Amino acid sequence: MGKLQACVLGSTGIVGQHFIRILENHPNFEVTTVTASQRSQGKEYRDATDWIVSSMIPESVKHLEVLTTDSDAILKQDVDIVFSALPSSTAFDIEARLAMAGLPIFSNAGAHRMDDDVPILIPEINPDHLELVRGQNYGDGFIITNSNCSTSGLVFGLKPLQKYGIKAVTVTTYQAVSGAGRKGISSIDILGNVIPFIPNEEEKMVSETKEILGDLCDGKVIPADFDVNASCVRVPVQDGHLESIVIDVEEQVEVEQIIDMLNNFSGEPQSLRLPTAPIHPIVVLNESNRPQPMRDLSLKEGDLGMTVKIGRLRRNGSRLNMFLLVHNTIRGAAGASVLNAEFALAKGVFE
Amino acid sequence: MGKLQACVLGSTGIVGQHFIRILENHPNFEVTTVTASQRSQGKEYRDATDWIVSSMIPESVKHLEVLTTDSDAILKQDVDIVFSALPSSTAFDIEARLAMAGLPIFSNAGAHRMDDDVPILIPEINPDHLELVRGQNYGDGFIITNSNCSTSGLVFGLKPLQKYGIKAVTVTTYQAVSGAGRKGISSIDILGNVIPFIPNEEEKMVSETKEILGDLCDGKVIPADFDVNASCVRVPVQDGHLESIVIDVEEQVEVEQIIDMLNNFSGEPQSLRLPTAPIHPIVVLNESNRPQPMRDLSLKEGDLGMTVKIGRLRRNGSRLNMFLLVHNTIRGAAGASVLNAEFALAKGVFE
Amino acid sequence: MGKLQACVLGSTGIVGQHFIRILENHPNFEVTTVTASQRSQGKEYRDATDWIVSSMIPESVKHLEVLTTDSDAILKQDVDIVFSALPSSTAFDIEARLAMAGLPIFSNAGAHRMDDDVPILIPEINPDHLELVRGQNYGDGFIITNSNCSTSGLVFGLKPLQKYGIKAVTVTTYQAVSGAGRKGISSIDILGNVIPFIPNEEEKMVSETKEILGDLCDGKVIPADFDVNASCVRVPVQDGHLESIVIDVEEQVEVEQIIDMLNNFSGEPQSLRLPTAPIHPIVVLNESNRPQPMRDLSLKEGDLGMTVKIGRLRRNGSRLNMFLLVHNTIRGAAGASVLNAEFALAKGVFE
Amino acid sequence: MGKLQACVLGSTGIVGQHFIRILENHPNFEVTTVTASQRSQGKEYRDATDWIVSSMIPESVKHLEVLTTDSDAILKQDVDIVFSALPSSTAFDIEARLAMAGLPIFSNAGAHRMDDDVPILIPEINPDHLELVRGQNYGDGFIITNSNCSTSGLVFGLKPLQKYGIKAVTVTTYQAVSGAGRKGISSIDILGNVIPFIPNEEEKMVSETKEILGDLCDGKVIPADFDVNASCVRVPVQDGHLESIVIDVEEQVEVEQIIDMLNNFSGEPQSLRLPTAPIHPIVVLNESNRPQPMRDLSLKEGDLGMTVKIGRLRRNGSRLNMFLLVHNTIRGAAGASVLNAEFALAKGVFE
Repeated sequence: MGKLQACVLGSTGIVGQHFIRILENHPNFEVTTVTASQRSQGKEYRDATDWIVSSMIPESVKHLEVLTTDSDAILKQDVDIVFSALPSSTAFDIEARLAMAGLPIFSNAGAHRMDDDVPILIPEINPDHLELVRGQNYGDGFIITNSNCSTSGLVFGLKPLQKYGIKAVTVTTYQAVSGAGRKGISSIDILGNVIPFIPNEEEKMVSETKEILGDLCDGKVIPADFDVNASCVRVPVQDGHLESIVIDVEEQVEVEQIIDMLNNFSGEPQSLRLPTAPIHPIVVLNESNRPQPMRDLSLKEGDLGMTVKIGRLRRNGSRLNMFLLVHNTIRGAAGASVLNAEFALAKGVFE
Repeated sequence: MGKLQACVLGSTGIVGQHFIRILENHPNFEVTTVTASQRSQGKEYRDATDWIVSSMIPESVKHLEVLTTDSDAILKQDVDIVFSALPSSTAFDIEARLAMAGLPIFSNAGAHRMDDDVPILIPEINPDHLELVRGQNYGDGFIITNSNCSTSGLVFGLKPLQKYGIKAVTVTTYQAVSGAGRKGISSIDILGNVIPFIPNEEEKMVSETKEILGDLCDGKVIPADFDVNASCVRVPVQDGHLESIVIDVEEQVEVEQIIDMLNNFSGEPQSLRLPTAPIHPIVVLNESNRPQPMRDLSLKEGDLGMTVKIGRLRRNGSRLNMFLLVHNTIRGAAGASVLNAEFALAKGVFE
Repeated sequence: MGKLQACVLGSTGIVGQHFIRILENHPNFEVTTVTASQRSQGKEYRDATDWIVSSMIPESVKHLEVLTTDSDAILKQDVDIVFSALPSSTAFDIEARLAMAGLPIFSNAGAHRMDDDVPILIPEINPDHLELVRGQNYGDGFIITNSNCSTSGLVFGLKPLQKYGIKAVTVTTYQAVSGAGRKGISSIDILGNVIPFIPNEEEKMVSETKEILGDLCDGKVIPADFDVNASCVRVPVQDGHLESIVIDVEEQVEVEQIIDMLNNFSGEPQSLRLPTAPIHPIVVLNESNRPQPMRDLSLKEGDLGMTVKIGRLRRNGSRLNMFLLVHNTIRGAAGASVLNAEFALAKGVFE
Repeated sequence: MGKLQACVLGSTGIVGQHFIRILENHPNFEVTTVTASQRSQGKEYRDATDWIVSSMIPESVKHLEVLTTDSDAILKQDVDIVFSALPSSTAFDIEARLAMAGLPIFSNAGAHRMDDDVPILIPEINPDHLELVRGQNYGDGFIITNSNCSTSGLVFGLKPLQKYGIKAVTVTTYQAVSGAGRKGISSIDILGNVIPFIPNEEEKMVSETKEILGDLCDGKVIPADFDVNASCVRVPVQDGHLESIVIDVEEQVEVEQIIDMLNNFSGEPQSLRLPTAPIHPIVVLNESNRPQPMRDLSLKEGDLGMTVKIGRLRRNGSRLNMFLLVHNTIRGAAGASVLNAEFALAKGVFE
């Protein structure tokens, strides 16, 4: 089988650029269609894009003509799969329309995340939620979303502990500016400053975390029933969301045991050896002052930003404390969607 | 009565500089003796000091000869009161020796904070703890400390709520580099980064908070009996510690009522109109994304950094959430000690 | 005489906010009309403005209703004088129209700067250029501009040396993000980075410097005839443009003599004791590593940002080297226009 | 032939770490001895080092025992070649002693740079200066230095233009904090600030540039005879020195022709295909606002930081302007020394 021809919606923004970058030389997918807003229409991708996510624009995409993000225009192309880096405001309609036209949609947008029949899929965490797509009414097409960037880290810290009975979670974040998009945060607001508010972020962390860690029951997700209390803050960091997490656990577990469990945590993407899956989804750092966004986003060659780092695991009475670092635009966005597509493909959902 | 002649120990560091700055033109105290480490001995203050806390070194101190921080040398001077900006490691002995020699010591150092008979005094919060000095064995002298910089903010967020029954507190910090001192944090470690560890800081926040909010009972402090869970992080900000605080409260109180209570919070420094006391110890900001260190350390002319700012007060079930900003080197250090001295003077402790 | 009623065009941006702030309690002018773009129309000033330039919005302006920047709307108000903080693109027409209607315009916009009959006025540097307004064809009205922010510093470093014969000037800048306006520079572009390009800035430095330092001759300005070579760079600093200046001078002058000359430099605003004029337009710093934007924008109480700081004056053969710091939004923008208005008023141009 | 056994002096600092990193899997050299200051003696390298230059410490070095930087201790080891990352203050004696003992020394320290018989070698620029070692009096040993970090960039901008007659050079820098070493710049001094002074840097740029671009004549270097005027500034950037360069050239050359010349510039390391030599020593960027330190230190896979980037080449009368970016700790330090060793080895100097 040849590679599936991929369309990237919203391809010129930061998440769009990461899609292009991650899909370069991908064994299953090949970017052949790129879209952006009206004003980029008809330009070559390289002229429409202020490329900032790595050294250079992949050769295979550089000269593609940018389409507007319009379903008619897209459906005239030869497209097998769609990756969406659209803002939520514009994603809702177009994603639904393309799914109705029979296309599989892997979306980083929040638009359809809380739809009952749309999974917020993280294949190491809730692979069974993939089932939800069977209940969708998009004909041959379907929509699979990945979570909000800060949530995508948090659930890795919680999942392995869920069996010990999580009663409550308090999470406080240190979020990078890249999470707000290309022009999201003006330098005058964040240089030498921190901003204790990110619109809608705390709400998303609460609802998405409970959804992802919820049980699938008769084709529906019953959200996890512990409390999540989130406080989200922007800091002057380029990439990488750090999270301080406090977890009330019912059973007493030794810290050493938890560290082992986290380091050995593994899921279907690992056993399926999916191309974008990291060997270890979680790595626990031993140093007293880690993880740090500037130092630990990529621990070694081959760490593409899909591994979540955890440090300073410590107990305080019944509460477990940890710091967790997630690469917000990779594990928290483009990489998450690509892994979802690889997983769905491996599980035969495309047929 | 003339002004009391003040000695500032450790006068060339950041906190020492703030002492000098705050005591300029003070109605009660006048800096006449300054000390620093061996290598500054004999220099004029202006030559020994890399002055960074405001525009210019006060004229009255510029030409003072710097002494080494040695009790014999200090006791040869005409000194009525001592302010200590020493590191804890060197503070213990010298502060005790000067107190034994009959001097009142107002110390920002942590060395004696947890001594049973030494108050960690914040006159708006625990004015009665001043009583502890009566039990000290330093003859005519005594030692009064102020709290650690991050604790000095936290207790303002908690005190007004204590009557509703605090069950547990989770605090997560965003701390400025000035808290680590003149050479504390290398630029290579913090530019574009955050560091999730500050040595001993979490322990201090836990023990000092419970001590300050504890009850004085038969001349001893019974620490407050709620849990404090602290996670401390350094961020690339010059001045101002921001804190995300989650409080489990027994009684249900309306958010609006709490805001009123915080805005109207007032203590003895306010009724005594002490020179360094702010008119309002706490100000609640209404904007959705405040307080921010770069914007809110000084809200208006005359806000010297002694007012604690609170924002985003919100309830999540039984938990109250808020962000709190404290000027770490003023309300959290030099300003705190000066206010303590004014308070002790007003209460007749010097006689 | 009562105060002149002032209208601030483009009042909600950074320069507009500085106009409002500087004009608070001004002895000659009183802000009674504020304008902004369409979307702010009808709002109270405080609701239309994300105020960031100081602690709080002046009471007298807070509740003013914001007009759109439209000449008809403005002329219906009782306006005696106009300060313009408009972007150049929109300034040209509206400023001309308001001048034609008889109003004196003091503009920070670049739109009319290079008009033959419009002075780029800096009253300490080229007070005689005020004459140009006599030749304008705006009836009773007129337009006076101030220079571009980086030029406003440079000319203070050059003017006192002009009598020794300047042959060539090389200037290289370190410009703060506030110079690009409220949303001008995205954090993702400047955090931990420098950007070696600022659109049109180098051209402005060249042409405006030669214009300001040119001779008035038969009602026209003959630009100064030395070469100016400018390289402009954005750096991650909030406020304050630093400039490295190399000057080829014909006559040999001692460095000490130049320092004296700079420190004693004074002009008509000083002799007229204009309200916004600094006592010393230039201050030379002696320390080996100054001036620095974070430390030296305001050297002492009462230094409002109108004083230019110079340091590291040194000779290298026939070339003089210096570093110069100018407060870009005050001496380089709003403060400059206000000083121009005070000067024009004192010189009787309003009659 | 097996690999030469290499000793890295001052191996735990930033430049030392880069030596370790660059020499990992090197075809000619293998690090077997590492030294540091007294307090690290006897520790394993990984315990003595706060590793920050890449993901992880190479396996082959991790467990090496750290020696003090003492010639006796070093000479007991089996060492064939020495790389020195020492501070200049301690480098002078130890480097001379080790050379006298017959070892080839490749030093990043400034200590011996201005010795008459020691080349400041950059093999693309002045390969013939290698001859100088023949005149050294160190027996079988010798010392070869690389230039100061900012100079290492500047000479690449000048060398290709030298044939057109350089009359004068003005260079103004934007230097990263890593150039000052692990603890060199305190965060409190540089966050949101720039510092217009770097001790001795301007003097080094002047003397080293003229030395490197000088002619070898009867075994001596006659320094180039054009003026160099340098102004050096520290900026809040982690890695990468940007330089604004203005060059007075005698002959008129077209900008397009110069760009071609720069892009095609090549030297002996390229024809010898030395392992650390970049394919293109210089790359000219076409974008209007490049090079930028955060984006352009590594342009693509395989760009290790040895390529100098140039942008905004433009003519202003007889003066050429450009911005140049050099990776200060690689092309400007460790990488430079390793390339020198490869070059000396290839030229048979070791025999």
